[in-house]
Amino acid sequence: MPEDPGRAPLPPGSTIGILGSGQLGRMLAVAAARLGLKTHVYCADSGPACDVATQTTRAGFEDCAALATFASAVDAVTFESENVAVEAARYLADRVPLRPSAKALEVAQDRLVEKEFIAELGIPVAPFLRIDGPGDMAAALVALGGPAILKSRRWGYDGKGQAGVTSPADAAAAWAAVGGVPAVLERRIAFACEISALAVRGHDGAIDFYECPRNTHEGGILRRSVVPAGLPAADLARASEIAGTVARALNYVGVLAVEMFYLGADIASEQRLMVNEIAPRVHNSGHWTIEACAISQFENHMRAVAGWPLGSTWRHSDAEMVNLIGSEALDWHRLAAEPGLALHLYAKREARAGRKMGHVTRLRGSPLR
Amino acid sequence: MPEDPGRAPLPPGSTIGILGSGQLGRMLAVAAARLGLKTHVYCADSGPACDVATQTTRAGFEDCAALATFASAVDAVTFESENVAVEAARYLADRVPLRPSAKALEVAQDRLVEKEFIAELGIPVAPFLRIDGPGDMAAALVALGGPAILKSRRWGYDGKGQAGVTSPADAAAAWAAVGGVPAVLERRIAFACEISALAVRGHDGAIDFYECPRNTHEGGILRRSVVPAGLPAADLARASEIAGTVARALNYVGVLAVEMFYLGADIASEQRLMVNEIAPRVHNSGHWTIEACAISQFENHMRAVAGWPLGSTWRHSDAEMVNLIGSEALDWHRLAAEPGLALHLYAKREARAGRKMGHVTRLRGSPLR
Repeated sequence: MPEDPGRAPLPPGSTIGILGSGQLGRMLAVAAARLGLKTHVYCADSGPACDVATQTTRAGFEDCAALATFASAVDAVTFESENVAVEAARYLADRVPLRPSAKALEVAQDRLVEKEFIAELGIPVAPFLRIDGPGDMAAALVALGGPAILKSRRWGYDGKGQAGVTSPADAAAAWAAVGGVPAVLERRIAFACEISALAVRGHDGAIDFYECPRNTHEGGILRRSVVPAGLPAADLARASEIAGTVARALNYVGVLAVEMFYLGADIASEQRLMVNEIAPRVHNSGHWTIEACAISQFENHMRAVAGWPLGSTWRHSDAEMVNLIGSEALDWHRLAAEPGLALHLYAKREARAGRKMGHVTRLRGSPLR
Repeated sequence: MPEDPGRAPLPPGSTIGILGSGQLGRMLAVAAARLGLKTHVYCADSGPACDVATQTTRAGFEDCAALATFASAVDAVTFESENVAVEAARYLADRVPLRPSAKALEVAQDRLVEKEFIAELGIPVAPFLRIDGPGDMAAALVALGGPAILKSRRWGYDGKGQAGVTSPADAAAAWAAVGGVPAVLERRIAFACEISALAVRGHDGAIDFYECPRNTHEGGILRRSVVPAGLPAADLARASEIAGTVARALNYVGVLAVEMFYLGADIASEQRLMVNEIAPRVHNSGHWTIEACAISQFENHMRAVAGWPLGSTWRHSDAEMVNLIGSEALDWHRLAAEPGLALHLYAKREARAGRKMGHVTRLRGSPLR
């Protein structure tokens, strides 16, 4: 059941709290503004979202006084990252609607809990085993039956906290590489490509989906998302169905991204998709929805959080989104001059290697290209 | 010649100052954010733009200390309204690039100066005469040869400061209605429809145009803008050419709107268009460019102000923009549920009669309609 279907939608002029100050928060704040909603960012360090938020509170997630003041200043709270302390989320949820829920956060921020949760729903995931120390690895590697990836259970993003493991001899180095913390060992999947499913669920339980993009990663970081993905329609429908199953099981409100491996059209149809991980938030692989869809993932997330009717996910153009990583954003002047290209820059102070500094979206089929 | 073609573009992370805090400033600030530019709003009273600006200064245009501090905190300045004190604009322009220039402001904020400027460029305007008191009206009415409209020279918007005059007996009432201030008397034009031309000119002199929308006013306030306008292509091209002539004559940087009367396809082609007024800023009749064009009027204005390459004005969809005036915005929940409708709300505190509270854009030709 939805969290509280009777609750009235928040009227324009209401304030949505956003935990986190990154680029996702920035684009959420901009989307909220279009709807006449104000935003209040809560963050330890100021970041891209602070430039456009109506208000900002700088404080840590352990600061209960700051959290209480924040809760009293907003009408609902959401987050732009799964790396929010669950205790802080629960503290806020006792005071003001938190959408999606702390439960979604809890599931998504621990890879072991996440994988067990998905597997229990009958959804295929890469075979995995719990690793509590380097000594667990040899047996796990045998049990998984092939090359594997060690992933820290918590605080991983953009490929951080991951290390390849092909033989027991790699165990110590891999354990050190992920930081010597509780982890999972996953069998490395030979996939044809990666896709993501993007669901949006309203607080009345209404659900809709964006078309699944095909994603390319480089060095653990998303490089490119393309729609259409060029896969059989039935497989894409199945991917959305999986995201819907996860969203309903979490009684989810907002945009939920589910990253999946597509194993190939030559595999039995019910085995072609395998969930890699879920993100309880708007997602980098959905940035193209700003230009190519009637209503973007950012606006639909904010509509859901505010208890509004969902907007149409209809896609009017083929699109390609490419991230600008590190120094690539220094090329902004040339990119700005490319006809029809939509250039998004996040105004991060420092263009560190591997840091997402912006993205570009090209609409295909436009006469400009 | 452009103001200073050699000046380097402002890099991402720069701050653009915006004079005024209304909905145009709000949409400019959001467009700037996408490009990684920060914004600093300067206004006497906080308004919709303050919710999304990186920073806000609340002070009057006569406050030189506040203006000086503001000038030192921004890398360029623009404005969202022609009702900015020219003295303040000149004070700022001495300290930081002001785009468009104080000259554009000066021409646009006095109807007499504006009409003389346009007429001197050889562009048709409605016949007009200067009115310095009610005693000037009888002779002017005879000279204009038909029903006329008295318009205050300054501070008019959305039909305010205007009064119809059909006989000398109306003189005293009309003079009182416009506030007893210097005015112009214009012959009332029997037009087939109204259109606007939207030019954008870069600080290197590059110029481009959005397709001209057909506009409908109600009670002096814009109600609806539609593209395509449904007029002969040659007439629309002529309208853009007129806007280009005005922009070049002003050595203009940014988006310039020129409102025109279209007298009808049965009129000699060089007489079909007559300029009503110019707006040295982004314009309500260009709001549909957010959804229907590659790059919106707001982003292109900010690109021009920052000295960036202009973005494509290419229109990918037919569109209709309708303003939400006064209590119409209270219907937000129904509008939010209309498939594919883009809803924009400005978060103004009070829905006063005649106040622009938001707008909606419908893309036509979408399968959703």
